[in-house]
Amino acid sequence: MRDVFHDELDEIGAGVIEMTRLVSVAMEQATGALLDADLVRAERVIEADARVDALREDLEDRAFQMIARQQPVATDLRVLVTTLHVVADLERMGDLALHVAKIARLRFPEASVPEEVRDIIAQMGEVARSLVHKVADVVEGRDVSLAHAIEAEDDSMDALRRKLFTLVLSPRWAHGTEAAIDMTLLGRYYERYADHAVAVARRTIFIVTGERPGSTTSGSTLR
Amino acid sequence: MRDVFHDELDEIGAGVIEMTRLVSVAMEQATGALLDADLVRAERVIEADARVDALREDLEDRAFQMIARQQPVATDLRVLVTTLHVVADLERMGDLALHVAKIARLRFPEASVPEEVRDIIAQMGEVARSLVHKVADVVEGRDVSLAHAIEAEDDSMDALRRKLFTLVLSPRWAHGTEAAIDMTLLGRYYERYADHAVAVARRTIFIVTGERPGSTTSGSTLR
Repeated sequence: MRDVFHDELDEIGAGVIEMTRLVSVAMEQATGALLDADLVRAERVIEADARVDALREDLEDRAFQMIARQQPVATDLRVLVTTLHVVADLERMGDLALHVAKIARLRFPEASVPEEVRDIIAQMGEVARSLVHKVADVVEGRDVSLAHAIEAEDDSMDALRRKLFTLVLSPRWAHGTEAAIDMTLLGRYYERYADHAVAVARRTIFIVTGERPGSTTSGSTLR
Repeated sequence: MRDVFHDELDEIGAGVIEMTRLVSVAMEQATGALLDADLVRAERVIEADARVDALREDLEDRAFQMIARQQPVATDLRVLVTTLHVVADLERMGDLALHVAKIARLRFPEASVPEEVRDIIAQMGEVARSLVHKVADVVEGRDVSLAHAIEAEDDSMDALRRKLFTLVLSPRWAHGTEAAIDMTLLGRYYERYADHAVAVARRTIFIVTGERPGSTTSGSTLR
């Protein structure tokens, strides 16, 4: 039989899984809104972010209260402290999906994404989706064997961002400065989303292996 | 007479103050390197970031160990948990200063910043400097009266970023797409640096007042 403490810990874990699901859906919907110039979907992503913020606040409070009242040690304490870090990363991923949706909204009814970079943005959305699904598997089952696959997806995201820059900087770019700014920011948002997803995975894997993940959100080395 | 626990807590506090000082110097130097196209200074900022990362790792470990071994309650626990959050924000501020320095390095021996936006970038550097000095005052003395001044500086940073965008998007912009991309990223880096500084102040003020700071790094609403 489980004790109350571990039931509470499981509930917090379920909340983290729910947050991961929400920020995954948010980025998928934001990418769709961007590529289809879909205002309704963009608005929905923007509104839905409040749920992610509230869940972060709730989980952070509960993790803190459990540390304060139950004075856990060893792995239980590490799980709770990791929760504090992980919910911060997940909230930030929600914010980044919201920023993507805001670019879609800002340019509506025009499409934000010119035809020739459409494919790259779609791929960035796809890598984000695939990456966060693997991260969810790590969070749910603490499957550390996915660590390498997650790092590889993060590298793909960086490569896509470089490819996006190359296109925007090519002499054939005919969409002006405003679209260049949008693409620069979009590239940054997808890349940071992936960075935070990787940070969540590394923190979770650390609980299992005890090996320190190092700097978790160091971000781009692109420039 | 102080006990060992509070001596250790003071040491961690001194480490947080040191990190705040380091990331303040990093952004000042990065701004200087950018405006003067100074490669040596840019390299120095890039190298110095390892010290910030190491300090974060050390402080995070020490805060965690203190929670695990001493099982503090009430305010002491809140200070330690806040330390975990605050050192993450400070590390990120160091990364952002490093990103600014990398743009300076990337364009060397050319100047990264066209003459007509030089003044805005200088002002962003100045707001960053002034803001983080106030944050350092909050961290050192927990002076909550600075809260409003800190929020006002953050608003100034957002206003400067909007002004920068307006110039880059004006028909008179004659520096091409590459410089537009650089200015977009610089604007974002300074703004995020300010956001994280505000988050540090809010977290610290929360210890004193017990009033929840809300979402701490929600970032731009610009787009």
